[in-house]
Amino acid sequence: MPSRASAAPAYVFVPDLGAAGSEVELSAAESHYVARVCRARTGEPLEATDGRGAVATLRVEVMERRVRVRVERVEQRARPRRAWMLCGEPEGQRDDWMVEKLAELGIECWFPIDSERGRWEGFSRRRERWERLAVAGLKQSRSAFLMQIRDPLPLQDAAGGVPADARRWLAREEGDVARAPAGAGLLAGVVGPAGGLTGSEEKWLMGVGFIAVSLAPSRLRAETAAVSLAAIWAAAG
Amino acid sequence: MPSRASAAPAYVFVPDLGAAGSEVELSAAESHYVARVCRARTGEPLEATDGRGAVATLRVEVMERRVRVRVERVEQRARPRRAWMLCGEPEGQRDDWMVEKLAELGIECWFPIDSERGRWEGFSRRRERWERLAVAGLKQSRSAFLMQIRDPLPLQDAAGGVPADARRWLAREEGDVARAPAGAGLLAGVVGPAGGLTGSEEKWLMGVGFIAVSLAPSRLRAETAAVSLAAIWAAAG
Repeated sequence: MPSRASAAPAYVFVPDLGAAGSEVELSAAESHYVARVCRARTGEPLEATDGRGAVATLRVEVMERRVRVRVERVEQRARPRRAWMLCGEPEGQRDDWMVEKLAELGIECWFPIDSERGRWEGFSRRRERWERLAVAGLKQSRSAFLMQIRDPLPLQDAAGGVPADARRWLAREEGDVARAPAGAGLLAGVVGPAGGLTGSEEKWLMGVGFIAVSLAPSRLRAETAAVSLAAIWAAAG
Repeated sequence: MPSRASAAPAYVFVPDLGAAGSEVELSAAESHYVARVCRARTGEPLEATDGRGAVATLRVEVMERRVRVRVERVEQRARPRRAWMLCGEPEGQRDDWMVEKLAELGIECWFPIDSERGRWEGFSRRRERWERLAVAGLKQSRSAFLMQIRDPLPLQDAAGGVPADARRWLAREEGDVARAPAGAGLLAGVVGPAGGLTGSEEKWLMGVGFIAVSLAPSRLRAETAAVSLAAIWAAAG
């Protein structure tokens, strides 16, 4: 799956990509990445995305503390298959890698959900790190879409906000075999916190159209279930 | 997917489970777990596995520094679906969670592979931690099978040791859609190191029956590819 980093130009995240012809200054983080990590030089090409579907070819013009680039070409990509993940809090530091892997696998929106047996404490303090992990996942996968990180919501509010035509999955020890749809559309997956959802929460979800799917013959940790569900979805695309 | 830990008796790993009726002394780690973490008491039931398919009901008899238990019932479980993972080294500390997740998802054997662009350095120093993570994954998933951790081997030797009737997958950016077989049998998956396999290594693998499968539309890190492949396999069972 991995391929040589050197085979392609450096891939950078530029939230405000202009039109072709415009000059853009990279962020401090991306300037450091281009100059120090990739050791790019003036005149070299870069690839970039705004994380919202635009992918551009850039040319390095000025290598100072902030790198300045010229946008040569921009194309807008569509995203026919989309997935949202509604996740209860896993144990310990496991949320870091959950966020990193969901971003890498191409999840569109990540919704931290508060439920009876688990609440996201200290979310705002951790948010900045997760935003960085999402950008790292975007760059690693050379994707055109940055995973959006939402504020924590009660389970019912987040699940209630899922569009009517979305396919709905609830990760559960007992359920149907999870066969991801290959075609276009939105999949919304719910994974409970480390302590699990209550029976009445599960019943409520199934009442609003969530289908219980089993991701493995054995019990999975909360973060493993979330990443497994995303992997099953990603592989079908 | 997660369920309440309190809903079931503590689950312990006992490599040398005797027959029904025998008395067994738990290891220091499992004694601590039973006495301090689960706060079990004399007379209470436990569940146990030897990691090789035997699952037992135990009864706590003596709660001293080492907990002693009586084996009440033992049953042997079969494992019709099996998976081996042959993995190149990922970047940084990512091998820890790769091992944890592969164990949790029920992989039978994990083979670290050395290839042109990646060798497992310091394997023996890290092995003990990985063995602990595999036991933790076994207990978490209440599985009857402990993931076996093999010594690093050259790619060709590890792949050459895959039984003739196994299904063979090579994780690759471009390949078939990964549809895991639902029936019995062995799946062997190869994932390259962080720097990727070379073209000639991939060609060699395809020559010995490995089928290139694509796990996601975008590029995945080595450890993400390994865990995705295991998740796709586990979900089909």
